[in-house]
Amino acid sequence: MDKNRIDKQFEFFREIDKEKFIERQTYLTGAKRKENDAEHAWHMTIMTFLLSEYANEEIDVLKTIKMLLIHDIVEIDAGDTFAYDKEGQKTQREREEKAAKRIFGLLPSDQGEKLMALWEEFEEGETKEARFAHTMDNIQPMMLNAANDGKSWQEWGVKLEQILNRNTNTNKGSEVLWDYAYNNFILPNVEKGRINGEE
Amino acid sequence: MDKNRIDKQFEFFREIDKEKFIERQTYLTGAKRKENDAEHAWHMTIMTFLLSEYANEEIDVLKTIKMLLIHDIVEIDAGDTFAYDKEGQKTQREREEKAAKRIFGLLPSDQGEKLMALWEEFEEGETKEARFAHTMDNIQPMMLNAANDGKSWQEWGVKLEQILNRNTNTNKGSEVLWDYAYNNFILPNVEKGRINGEE
Repeated sequence: MDKNRIDKQFEFFREIDKEKFIERQTYLTGAKRKENDAEHAWHMTIMTFLLSEYANEEIDVLKTIKMLLIHDIVEIDAGDTFAYDKEGQKTQREREEKAAKRIFGLLPSDQGEKLMALWEEFEEGETKEARFAHTMDNIQPMMLNAANDGKSWQEWGVKLEQILNRNTNTNKGSEVLWDYAYNNFILPNVEKGRINGEE
Repeated sequence: MDKNRIDKQFEFFREIDKEKFIERQTYLTGAKRKENDAEHAWHMTIMTFLLSEYANEEIDVLKTIKMLLIHDIVEIDAGDTFAYDKEGQKTQREREEKAAKRIFGLLPSDQGEKLMALWEEFEEGETKEARFAHTMDNIQPMMLNAANDGKSWQEWGVKLEQILNRNTNTNKGSEVLWDYAYNNFILPNVEKGRINGEE
């Protein structure tokens, strides 16, 4: 056993514990409190292996799951940037890049480099696994928002147009899932006025 | 698209959101609050793919990850039974079995049966993946307890003997990781009196 290697791995595991304190804008069932990044990742990874049958192209499920498990770790330093927060988005990339270097850098270099590459692949969103991961990342909060009578959409006064702009690539991972989400989570909430449907 | 199939899948995803409210006895970093089951699962799955190199036998990482992601879903109905709660343990198996049937039963039958089989495989702890999953399930809270000056061990007055009894199989998944945990998380806390080392 390489003592130094295993020490570095556990140092990383202790550090990422902090992801459990990063609050998102999505409410959990019953709207009792908001979701955190670790819970969000757990939820999406289960969704991934049960929904991969709807991917546009056959995906490597393990790779997609790894991507989703680690993609928000950067927010330990960079914080969560809400999907509709324009100001925050201006500096998001830079803040997250720096965070990735520091946190993945705690690992033995071979593993740190792999996670960095996986995170970048997710950010670029070009491979079939990254596309499906983004589909999950967009649909999971939509499902929860819809289950909570659109509380989070209403608090932020979110417009249909903003949701559609944000989701231009959601169908790239899965046409089936985007159709389902649009018809079951978005449209009914526009009709009920929980999403602002005005131009 | 089989509408009924996809509806059942999303019904299941909404239901398992409740796992985020199941509190464990482990404190998070800084002991600000206790961990919940979803956070615990997320943490262990990342540990699994980065620590699988220490498994006694080569494991199927995806299978192990799926097992860990879903193994605590039964606690939505059955609640968390603390490792050192003898009374609760008497009825644990029966409560969890019933929960598994109800919750996995929300899924399309092919997927529900697969998750049921995976959960049972974990519970039986006989395959190499189940053994490694138990190693993770035991070591992750140990790591956090040690990082929090043994707060949870002290609250429950946990004895070294109880920990060792609980961990008779932890080395079955990975000798290396059990040695590491014993020497880095347990022994130093016996020496500091945070774990009761008396016979």
